[in-house]
Amino acid sequence: MNRILTIVNKPSTDAPARDPDAPAFWHADPAEPQVSVLDLGVTRGDGIFETISIGNGHPQALDHHLSRFAHSAAMLELPAPDLGLWREVIHATAEALSPTAEAWVKTVMSRGVEGGDILTGWAFGSHSADFTRDRTEGVRVVLLDRGYKHDVEKTSPWLLAGAKTLSYAINRAAAREAVRRGADDVIFVSSDGIVLEGPTSTVIYRRDGALYSPGTGLGILDGTTQANVFRYAESLGMPTAFELTTPDLLRASDAVWLVSSVRHFAPVRAIDGVERAVDGPFTTAVNAWLGALRD
Amino acid sequence: MNRILTIVNKPSTDAPARDPDAPAFWHADPAEPQVSVLDLGVTRGDGIFETISIGNGHPQALDHHLSRFAHSAAMLELPAPDLGLWREVIHATAEALSPTAEAWVKTVMSRGVEGGDILTGWAFGSHSADFTRDRTEGVRVVLLDRGYKHDVEKTSPWLLAGAKTLSYAINRAAAREAVRRGADDVIFVSSDGIVLEGPTSTVIYRRDGALYSPGTGLGILDGTTQANVFRYAESLGMPTAFELTTPDLLRASDAVWLVSSVRHFAPVRAIDGVERAVDGPFTTAVNAWLGALRD
Repeated sequence: MNRILTIVNKPSTDAPARDPDAPAFWHADPAEPQVSVLDLGVTRGDGIFETISIGNGHPQALDHHLSRFAHSAAMLELPAPDLGLWREVIHATAEALSPTAEAWVKTVMSRGVEGGDILTGWAFGSHSADFTRDRTEGVRVVLLDRGYKHDVEKTSPWLLAGAKTLSYAINRAAAREAVRRGADDVIFVSSDGIVLEGPTSTVIYRRDGALYSPGTGLGILDGTTQANVFRYAESLGMPTAFELTTPDLLRASDAVWLVSSVRHFAPVRAIDGVERAVDGPFTTAVNAWLGALRD
Repeated sequence: MNRILTIVNKPSTDAPARDPDAPAFWHADPAEPQVSVLDLGVTRGDGIFETISIGNGHPQALDHHLSRFAHSAAMLELPAPDLGLWREVIHATAEALSPTAEAWVKTVMSRGVEGGDILTGWAFGSHSADFTRDRTEGVRVVLLDRGYKHDVEKTSPWLLAGAKTLSYAINRAAAREAVRRGADDVIFVSSDGIVLEGPTSTVIYRRDGALYSPGTGLGILDGTTQANVFRYAESLGMPTAFELTTPDLLRASDAVWLVSSVRHFAPVRAIDGVERAVDGPFTTAVNAWLGALRD
């Protein structure tokens, strides 16, 4: 099977089970409807998710994904996910997929049906699409205003900036805007001119032989794959750092990448229509290392 | 029955039917799961909705709701909803509810399962909760920063400000922040200090005998019930107008209300903990008029 759905019976130890007599989780048919029209996950996008890369059957950056899942739950004031159970669910979903070099598992936890106290939880696993072209030729990006100031996470936590929620309509609309402008992807910039992240990726750039990324506290996600890329770079002796940066400084850097769990390390070949050099050998080495990760 | 679910077979004339052999719509069991875990409505909050008040069986402000539904679809680049069909669906859902003075029907259209071209559409109807207390005693609100500048709808349409989407996690988080501050509801303010809207309501205020509301073009919804309140006020000879306003001017006004389809006309009895007078007679008259509306 190249698609597996796993229903989670009791996504949090702090909330009741969906079915008290059922096991902790079970596989179900992803072609059948599984979610109520009254679930706040669908009526309000009121839930959280993570997408975990599965390399040759092994979930990658799993601890980091689980801690980010818990962080998102806390930001939405959802009951804390039962991380031990979710770890089992992710492994079980990955193992139920037929063997493949690259797959992914998405975990979802919503607040459940409005007025109830039963959370909805599931994991969906699938074989990955082929991202060879994005990883070798690179992606053309446009810079788009994210509308928020770069410190919005600190000043206005109710805006949920920095949480990975089911309310992703803006991320999808930004991707359509990129296509409209002849590009493949987006890098968001804060309303006060700080480079943030892509709609489904983290930004990494290189300057004078060191790798940089915007880091956390900017209302953006704590990148799981970015952390692994930094780990790899450090193993090669390359310095790494987080820093605030501007579009001008980004454009002046030696190389830029968008990094994410499933597509991995995609070089940016153009920003706002201005072509850029792609570092093929380094990109290939990073992707080979990411693909071979076993934890 | 005080809850009715109606599945829409072909929500847009521009997209294929869910089941080519089935009727245009049919009632289904709202207690059963109806939505795929792969539906972009739940995985990305990538869809739109409207909530229409049903007064003694009659959908209210229906034309306005339908035109707003179409406007949201256009902002999300969804195929245009088949408004004639949706009108029928809303009537059929309202009629299937057992008689009651106050009910509501929510219409939802999502982009459907990722990679497919079949939209998901349904209407859910329910008897209303009792809002007597909100309508008479009033609601305590807090002002919260919405993070965006007031002109974001014009500068950055990909942020979908002004569309009524399924990505409402922020609206829910803001409501929780209000409760944390000892209040019942929220009025959002732009990052540059312009009064916007509530998470599920439009702001109306009175100054020198005239009614005002922020109006459109500010990344906020075109209020359906606000339009009706203005219509009623004008029938009484009260002037009405849209204007940009600030929190200071709002606080200095004679009276403030939050207006929405189901709760109707709720007086604001406190802003950020500062008590305000509530105009009981006018509020009661508006709510009586809204409740008696037949179109």
